[in-house]
Amino acid sequence: MIDQLKIDVCNANRALEPSGLVKLTWGNVSGIDRAAGLWCIKPSGVAYSELKPEDMVVLDLQGNVVEGTYRPSSDTKTHLHLYQAFEEIGGITHTHSPYATVFAQAGRELPCFGTTHADHFHGSVPIVRALTPGEVAADYEHFTGVAIVERLLELGLSPTEMPAILQLHHAPFTFGKNAMDSLNNSIALEMCAQMALGSLALHPALGSIPEYILEKHHLRKHGPGAYYGQGKH
Amino acid sequence: MIDQLKIDVCNANRALEPSGLVKLTWGNVSGIDRAAGLWCIKPSGVAYSELKPEDMVVLDLQGNVVEGTYRPSSDTKTHLHLYQAFEEIGGITHTHSPYATVFAQAGRELPCFGTTHADHFHGSVPIVRALTPGEVAADYEHFTGVAIVERLLELGLSPTEMPAILQLHHAPFTFGKNAMDSLNNSIALEMCAQMALGSLALHPALGSIPEYILEKHHLRKHGPGAYYGQGKH
Amino acid sequence: MIDQLKIDVCNANRALEPSGLVKLTWGNVSGIDRAAGLWCIKPSGVAYSELKPEDMVVLDLQGNVVEGTYRPSSDTKTHLHLYQAFEEIGGITHTHSPYATVFAQAGRELPCFGTTHADHFHGSVPIVRALTPGEVAADYEHFTGVAIVERLLELGLSPTEMPAILQLHHAPFTFGKNAMDSLNNSIALEMCAQMALGSLALHPALGSIPEYILEKHHLRKHGPGAYYGQGKH
Amino acid sequence: MIDQLKIDVCNANRALEPSGLVKLTWGNVSGIDRAAGLWCIKPSGVAYSELKPEDMVVLDLQGNVVEGTYRPSSDTKTHLHLYQAFEEIGGITHTHSPYATVFAQAGRELPCFGTTHADHFHGSVPIVRALTPGEVAADYEHFTGVAIVERLLELGLSPTEMPAILQLHHAPFTFGKNAMDSLNNSIALEMCAQMALGSLALHPALGSIPEYILEKHHLRKHGPGAYYGQGKH
Repeated sequence: MIDQLKIDVCNANRALEPSGLVKLTWGNVSGIDRAAGLWCIKPSGVAYSELKPEDMVVLDLQGNVVEGTYRPSSDTKTHLHLYQAFEEIGGITHTHSPYATVFAQAGRELPCFGTTHADHFHGSVPIVRALTPGEVAADYEHFTGVAIVERLLELGLSPTEMPAILQLHHAPFTFGKNAMDSLNNSIALEMCAQMALGSLALHPALGSIPEYILEKHHLRKHGPGAYYGQGKH
Repeated sequence: MIDQLKIDVCNANRALEPSGLVKLTWGNVSGIDRAAGLWCIKPSGVAYSELKPEDMVVLDLQGNVVEGTYRPSSDTKTHLHLYQAFEEIGGITHTHSPYATVFAQAGRELPCFGTTHADHFHGSVPIVRALTPGEVAADYEHFTGVAIVERLLELGLSPTEMPAILQLHHAPFTFGKNAMDSLNNSIALEMCAQMALGSLALHPALGSIPEYILEKHHLRKHGPGAYYGQGKH
Repeated sequence: MIDQLKIDVCNANRALEPSGLVKLTWGNVSGIDRAAGLWCIKPSGVAYSELKPEDMVVLDLQGNVVEGTYRPSSDTKTHLHLYQAFEEIGGITHTHSPYATVFAQAGRELPCFGTTHADHFHGSVPIVRALTPGEVAADYEHFTGVAIVERLLELGLSPTEMPAILQLHHAPFTFGKNAMDSLNNSIALEMCAQMALGSLALHPALGSIPEYILEKHHLRKHGPGAYYGQGKH
Repeated sequence: MIDQLKIDVCNANRALEPSGLVKLTWGNVSGIDRAAGLWCIKPSGVAYSELKPEDMVVLDLQGNVVEGTYRPSSDTKTHLHLYQAFEEIGGITHTHSPYATVFAQAGRELPCFGTTHADHFHGSVPIVRALTPGEVAADYEHFTGVAIVERLLELGLSPTEMPAILQLHHAPFTFGKNAMDSLNNSIALEMCAQMALGSLALHPALGSIPEYILEKHHLRKHGPGAYYGQGKH
């Protein structure tokens, strides 16, 4: 069971580099097994192409390392806090993918400019505030998670309808049903950000798409009557 | 005969990913055998690299599934309406390729800024209006086809001279003599959109190329006296 | 001798696609053997990956096809006129590479914004005027060559110091000592155009680099005292 | 010992092309063995994919070629001056990577717009002035090194905290603990420049990130209490 999780999380981490979302070691994916109460994450600073399932670091939901010879990703406490706060999160991906990071650096939320966006994200992808000097000094990675959770709750959004955020000055985090699903949301976010930047170049005052089109596209993929894919065939 | 069509449509769908036009499963290609009155399309939500000819879903021109174990693409009714409306369409490609989608999202038609464009598209690639709330509620994919056909007729354009449109808030559709030809028009459209975005950055008020150059380039490839390629050798 | 030329020109044409400069069949390379008075060029509309040396079309300097089973590139008369006009041209590459084409479409010459440019092109890469309706009607490809030659002579530039031009509404042509050298100049031109577009985004009024730096960089690669590479080792 | 250095420097040079940072032969990497007082660099104008460790040119710290059959990179004197000036430099990479070069050409320093930047560069990556006509005439490559050293000293920056500079009109140089580390800093610089260009498109007046976040990110990777990676595990 936990072996399968390690394979899945390893596969998602190995897929980061060919996806074009990361350079060097700038990104990490984790996944959780809720029944076992265990989750695992990429080891810190190890090259993606060398990762093996047994290199994944296994932790419990109190943040204790349960298994693994490597030190976990430096972003581990952020992932931990997200898993603690939201039962529906099954996987988390963090990258510094360039176009999403451009919006994070510029402090601009990513509006829903088209159906590609609506297919994955139910409205604007929010900006999460910068941490305070006190939070940075006390526990930077933990409070990154705290600020993300705070922002989603403030906006009344679940991580299922809004499986992505942009942290100001930093970069995106995405969520999903499992590790690979969270990675797919990172891929979708990056393309939406690239297309948004181009759309704003053509039309600087561009507004969001009409609500009824956003709803239609989101629900044909995610609602109870979803008819995209083979799931209900 | 229909076996060859399934191979051709499968090949065109498999070519989507290496072409750089799609991420995840954001695109689909179909092709028609007019003599047999049958056409086939990609199954919904299946990874491109796993597609086999026998996975293609075969339909008739009333939209009935004639053959295939998978559910067809969620965009099937759009393709169907286009095949019904225009005898000259032999293949259709739909993608969310980033630069073409930028123009669709910004609601800007794609003007003919150069001979690359003129070689493939006879004038500006038009914007197709958004659907109304009533159309979205009644039958989203069907009315997408209706709006495309309506726009081409309104402009007096055949899908042979204008094998591409941009649907507002959404993305492009392209047409062709067959599945692969429609994909090639998607590749051409994406490059023309990329170059148009850059051209507008350098020269925001840029106008279309002179009519006589547009005509020359279009006709040397597509007119009755065409002399590009090996066709008349 | 001519066999070696066919191999060289075939190799340069096959290198077009991996170089990222072309999509579909949008580009062609030719090369000349001045001693033999023969030159050869890509056949029209044939896929790059399928090209074999024996597919190259051999012509003389009057434009007669001397050898080859295919029809030559539709741009053959442009290449021919350039070989006739300038003894020093040994190879020619034509592409619709996106960033260089952006400048051609926008009608902006490409200024020398840095040493990368100076290493290859001795000053601004010029814009060549559009053809007149009469020229287009009479012989489009021939007069394309005429306009290029006219522009270089007007500016007092040899194709050795300025191995690239941008034809208005169309795309670039580059020259070189041989087929592969002309392709390398297309690669250099594309990168210079990409960097120029970005430089103008940061600094819209940016001027050319100082003359003494342009001279230094150009001459360390191309002057009589050149010391770049292994040539004079 | 020196054999290992030649292998390391060869590997870093061979990694330039797959990294996407260079076209043609526009870039070079060197590395030094301080104990042996020897360093080696890429030969000038040789294709990356053909490089073998024995092709590396070995020099001493007076700039004499000690070993090697090829002429060293034309930028050799720049590298030499940097190794002479700063004991802490173990490797140097020079490229014309497009986004970093855009900032160099536009004469804009690269501000710290996000944590990706802070992770690698302690503040704005500085612009180094153009050489004077006298310096260009006397010894272009030597004075390029002189101007770089002068600028870092002027700003009170060590090449460890600021392992990158942008030379006006030209392109970037990066430094590192060894050849591969300097290459990684070139990869980081290029991504930071790409994201900065996009960030400025969205927010032209964007300022640097808060100092306390810059410090935190830089120190979690580079300070005495660094906890990124497996180094202190």
